[in-house]
Amino acid sequence: SSGAMGQARRMLNGGLPQVDVAHLLEATPPKEREILWGLIDEELRGDVLQYLSEDLQSDFIGRMNAEEVLAATTNLDLDDLVDLLQRLPDAVIGEVLQSMDAQDRHRIELAMAYPEDTAGGIMNTDTITVRPDITLDVVLRYLRWHDQLPDSTDALLVVSRRDDFIGRLPINKLLVADPNITVREVMETDCLKLQATLEDTEVAKLFEKFDLISAPVVDDDNRLLGRVTIDDVVDIIREDAEHTVMSMAGLDEEEDTFSPALKTSRRRAVWLGINLLTAFLASSVIGLFEGTIQQITALAVLMPIVASMGGIGGSQTLTVMIRGIALGHVSGSNLRWLLRRELIAGAINGLIWAVVVAVIAIIWFQDIKLGWIIGTAIIINLLIAALTGTLLPVLLKKMHIDPALSGSVILTTVTDVIGFMAFLGLATMFYLAH
Amino acid sequence: SSGAMGQARRMLNGGLPQVDVAHLLEATPPKEREILWGLIDEELRGDVLQYLSEDLQSDFIGRMNAEEVLAATTNLDLDDLVDLLQRLPDAVIGEVLQSMDAQDRHRIELAMAYPEDTAGGIMNTDTITVRPDITLDVVLRYLRWHDQLPDSTDALLVVSRRDDFIGRLPINKLLVADPNITVREVMETDCLKLQATLEDTEVAKLFEKFDLISAPVVDDDNRLLGRVTIDDVVDIIREDAEHTVMSMAGLDEEEDTFSPALKTSRRRAVWLGINLLTAFLASSVIGLFEGTIQQITALAVLMPIVASMGGIGGSQTLTVMIRGIALGHVSGSNLRWLLRRELIAGAINGLIWAVVVAVIAIIWFQDIKLGWIIGTAIIINLLIAALTGTLLPVLLKKMHIDPALSGSVILTTVTDVIGFMAFLGLATMFYLAH
Repeated sequence: SSGAMGQARRMLNGGLPQVDVAHLLEATPPKEREILWGLIDEELRGDVLQYLSEDLQSDFIGRMNAEEVLAATTNLDLDDLVDLLQRLPDAVIGEVLQSMDAQDRHRIELAMAYPEDTAGGIMNTDTITVRPDITLDVVLRYLRWHDQLPDSTDALLVVSRRDDFIGRLPINKLLVADPNITVREVMETDCLKLQATLEDTEVAKLFEKFDLISAPVVDDDNRLLGRVTIDDVVDIIREDAEHTVMSMAGLDEEEDTFSPALKTSRRRAVWLGINLLTAFLASSVIGLFEGTIQQITALAVLMPIVASMGGIGGSQTLTVMIRGIALGHVSGSNLRWLLRRELIAGAINGLIWAVVVAVIAIIWFQDIKLGWIIGTAIIINLLIAALTGTLLPVLLKKMHIDPALSGSVILTTVTDVIGFMAFLGLATMFYLAH
Repeated sequence: SSGAMGQARRMLNGGLPQVDVAHLLEATPPKEREILWGLIDEELRGDVLQYLSEDLQSDFIGRMNAEEVLAATTNLDLDDLVDLLQRLPDAVIGEVLQSMDAQDRHRIELAMAYPEDTAGGIMNTDTITVRPDITLDVVLRYLRWHDQLPDSTDALLVVSRRDDFIGRLPINKLLVADPNITVREVMETDCLKLQATLEDTEVAKLFEKFDLISAPVVDDDNRLLGRVTIDDVVDIIREDAEHTVMSMAGLDEEEDTFSPALKTSRRRAVWLGINLLTAFLASSVIGLFEGTIQQITALAVLMPIVASMGGIGGSQTLTVMIRGIALGHVSGSNLRWLLRRELIAGAINGLIWAVVVAVIAIIWFQDIKLGWIIGTAIIINLLIAALTGTLLPVLLKKMHIDPALSGSVILTTVTDVIGFMAFLGLATMFYLAH
């Protein structure tokens, strides 16, 4: 067992790449995870921490004191260090910053001045800068002074004496151009620069659109602050995608796969509670028609079909709209076109499935009237679903509410209420009034 | 109007970047889209095509003949060209290949030999290769023979005379190392290489894990075929994410936001049909208890609550599991832990909400027995939901079925059936048997 322990220790401290150690921790239930964490050398913990999800980072780093944080994070890139620091209580952040040298402290404070989800928050300050009036040969010799260049360096950044951003000198150009010409003659000046306050999802869109590897970050006065690199952008794209999927089920994308049962149930209870409210709303609609149901129990049997078809049809429209909004396809001028298309598609599918359900209902309950009623209710509900699915996400977006989070709850509330109301209402009219 | 037309033409042919033109087309309804497409110069169309979604690519390129395809695609990168060719009928592909020079044809046939969703299918063959025994100075002079280096060139690839892959020479090392040493002395030989048949989502995981900009692609004999670059990987990550969200609603991630009503309704009808089958299954369960409902109509009012709580609780578990599987967190050894955690969480939330619903039901219908029955049914359904939500995606994955596509349909079928069965069954036992 001590041999196995020793082997595990060796694997965790150099045997495996740190990113794999982080993955192993994420794929391990809490108790075993604690044991593994205890086996990792203190000075390697920072390297592992940077690859963990926020939930786990907070968990581990929250229990370290300033000294341990410092020991663990000495080898980290600035942007990764800033990420970690943001998980600490303010008091500990202060202590950590105190014990750093002035230059590092200044750079970290600069990066922490911007929110985590902005270009400034994800930037790195390890940029290699050059002046415009030197020759490429001087640049090449200057580079040779470095032991290595920062990761994802596809360009050097050209700045003035005052650190104003002037342009970028792509490494690829540096390599093919005549060494005797100056930086000014080959640099690109019409290149993209990111305002430090730009949202990270917007940064990701620009990287995708222009196939960037890195991009400079500037402040309001066009002063160069640092650069954003593609590896961080890939993380943002992945997190953004996870956020959509997870928030559709009322979950947090940073949640640890192995978070303990109590924590898990507390987080999920809220979503179940919200859903319960909407379910009671639907129930109260059914309650209005108790008398009708008592006389025609077939209604109770068939009513979930009407609600469920509306829910599915509406979710399809909602999903298409949420994606369209995210891709920037939806604007005021084409919203009418989309609404019309969705209503036509809703009417077509409404008609088709209304006939199918009506025929089955008639054969099942030997009641032609019931077929007409359920068919009509399905058409009504699919039209309302199309209308709600199209307009709801646009409305939520305007109110700065995430449509992926609340869209489907509101939508199914509408399709449940309208579905029960239409079906039971029509039945009451046609069975009881005559 | 002619002035406006002329202005539009100028915007489309050079005024806007091609990626923006493609975005404009994607964000425009079909009729106006046709007009815009007609205004784009023939030789620029390929550049625009490469940025469009598959749905639109097929639409436009499907109507071009071989000559037009050739005219449109002369400026494209090989991997983008191969992407486009795959949307053409075989006869047209043949014609296009016929009219190319032998070298280009050979390279394209090589890339098309691998499925679209593999490393071979997304690779580029514009790789710069060097031999191991030359000096860095020779490499630098060789590079200066090029007008420019291919995009995303962060390393040159080192190959033998027989094109066997030996290692990579990072540009960053080339720039800082002594020019008089040989490639062999600085190259990295333990670097990652991708088998041409590796799935694209696995490629993306490796890029994310190791923060890669590009990676070499080799065949079974370790011969260098080309390289995959980060811009294509970013597209894969984005498509993969969209695929999950869209397939949860039974939709195709390549679907045009503005596809016509008829096409849209045909695609969605299938999903509605599948859902209808499961809805009828739930209805038939209710049908078993018509007699009970006739005597106690409160059951019809409350039964959607039991089904809906199970559906929500189950989706939460399902979503966490699907993500856990995608991230590689779920394995045979920790599945038991996860199942136990989910069952405990299900029991906790089941108890809490059972009490809440029971109290409301008792007050609403003045019937204590009803409270006991609905509370018990909710606990049962949330436990079954936890069980199904945990095991179903693992089972589907083993059967090579996409859990994001079919998981939630199957899950809600289970929670509907069990929910109605438990609630109405318990009611029948306790009201009618006594």
